[in-house]
Amino acid sequence: MPRFALKIEYDGRPFAGWQAQADQPSVQKSVEDALARLDAGFAEGARIAAAGRTDAGVHATGQVAHADLQKDWDSFRLTEALNFHLKPAPVAILQVAPVAGDFHARFSALERRYLFRLVARRAPLTHGRGRVWQVQNPLDIEKMRAGAAFLIGQHDFTTFRSSICQAKSPVKTLDEIAIEEVEIPHGREYRFFLRARSFLHNQVRSIVGTLERVGAGGWSPDRVRAALEARDRGECGPVCPPQGLYLTGVGYPENPFGE
Amino acid sequence: MPRFALKIEYDGRPFAGWQAQADQPSVQKSVEDALARLDAGFAEGARIAAAGRTDAGVHATGQVAHADLQKDWDSFRLTEALNFHLKPAPVAILQVAPVAGDFHARFSALERRYLFRLVARRAPLTHGRGRVWQVQNPLDIEKMRAGAAFLIGQHDFTTFRSSICQAKSPVKTLDEIAIEEVEIPHGREYRFFLRARSFLHNQVRSIVGTLERVGAGGWSPDRVRAALEARDRGECGPVCPPQGLYLTGVGYPENPFGE
Repeated sequence: MPRFALKIEYDGRPFAGWQAQADQPSVQKSVEDALARLDAGFAEGARIAAAGRTDAGVHATGQVAHADLQKDWDSFRLTEALNFHLKPAPVAILQVAPVAGDFHARFSALERRYLFRLVARRAPLTHGRGRVWQVQNPLDIEKMRAGAAFLIGQHDFTTFRSSICQAKSPVKTLDEIAIEEVEIPHGREYRFFLRARSFLHNQVRSIVGTLERVGAGGWSPDRVRAALEARDRGECGPVCPPQGLYLTGVGYPENPFGE
Repeated sequence: MPRFALKIEYDGRPFAGWQAQADQPSVQKSVEDALARLDAGFAEGARIAAAGRTDAGVHATGQVAHADLQKDWDSFRLTEALNFHLKPAPVAILQVAPVAGDFHARFSALERRYLFRLVARRAPLTHGRGRVWQVQNPLDIEKMRAGAAFLIGQHDFTTFRSSICQAKSPVKTLDEIAIEEVEIPHGREYRFFLRARSFLHNQVRSIVGTLERVGAGGWSPDRVRAALEARDRGECGPVCPPQGLYLTGVGYPENPFGE
């Protein structure tokens, strides 16, 4: 059975998350329903696996999943056919590529990249609603960078992990937290770029929520180190809402999309 | 009665346009309803006037209107109070400024600025839905610029004017059409910046729809000149849809917002 990797973009707003759940709209179900229109295996209930099981309201611009199909499709035609059947869901297949039978979208992944968009301005957002997290006052980016620096490297991230996280170990290696500040009319946008082999449940939102406290002045950067070292969920800052979060890319030993 | 200028941002999707119409959601009505919560005159039916009466689905990041209030409000407090009462409509007051009694948001305006966002990519849009116009194939920006050049200056724009346009004269002076191309993942975005003292109804959408034909190769740039000179609505290219259009700013002899 030929295996295909799918690069997927979606607006997370209408979905209860990536993962298929009974009676709830999910991105996974939308893609599987589109595959079922093209492939007998999916019509009979075959499933896809994805690199990141994003939460409700979380977006993606570079999610990766894989699917085993009965027929050896041309990649371009498969992309077009899936996008046709995905309408009107806000889910798009950006690219399809044939991969070896041992490629696994989740288990072969060496790196996940996330972006968190945070906008600071007084007036409520109109165009950015559901797409960024808004706070009212500008943040101190240098303090946030100083706080973020304590989190880089291998640590026990118990403090920054949802209490329902199912990962076996709280130890993860965070390779990068880059923070950029962009002027926007009547406000500022802060973009947090995080990169790791894998993340714990709610880890990005726990980190960004904590760094926002640092940027707002309520926390000193040192308190981030103390919170990390405490290995205590109760020491985490407020977990920020999902709508600013984007899964932007997944890295593999060999990029199936050939970029 | 103190007069205030309001700088207004909105997502045009849920509205039948700027202008208040019976039984249809409008941006004007949303703002007037918020004013009615604060001011007796508006509670009794006072109206606001705006620089640009945008169509259904058209957005704004810099619409300007004026309102006469009974009380001399502090600008910051008035902004906050209006934004509070505007919720949950996707309309935000970005700034409020006291203006002289002879300031008129529409008739004092010397310049309107519009942006049209056009995205070319194969895969359907997810995050940009309702916010840009999508075509499938990349466009030739140099040809579009060559076609646009014929439209700069004072002309009879009958070709590029809706048949229901109520302006007395079809003669307008177009000061600028700048076109920028931006690479986006899996596609390209073309941004058209148009500037004029005032525009005819559907003029921007008629121009951009025609230039898209030039960029796609269906029209030569010279055909834009021929269409203009024909002064015949039938010679216009296809009018493009409203969702890529943004009223980004309005110019006055003196900027009431002091920028």
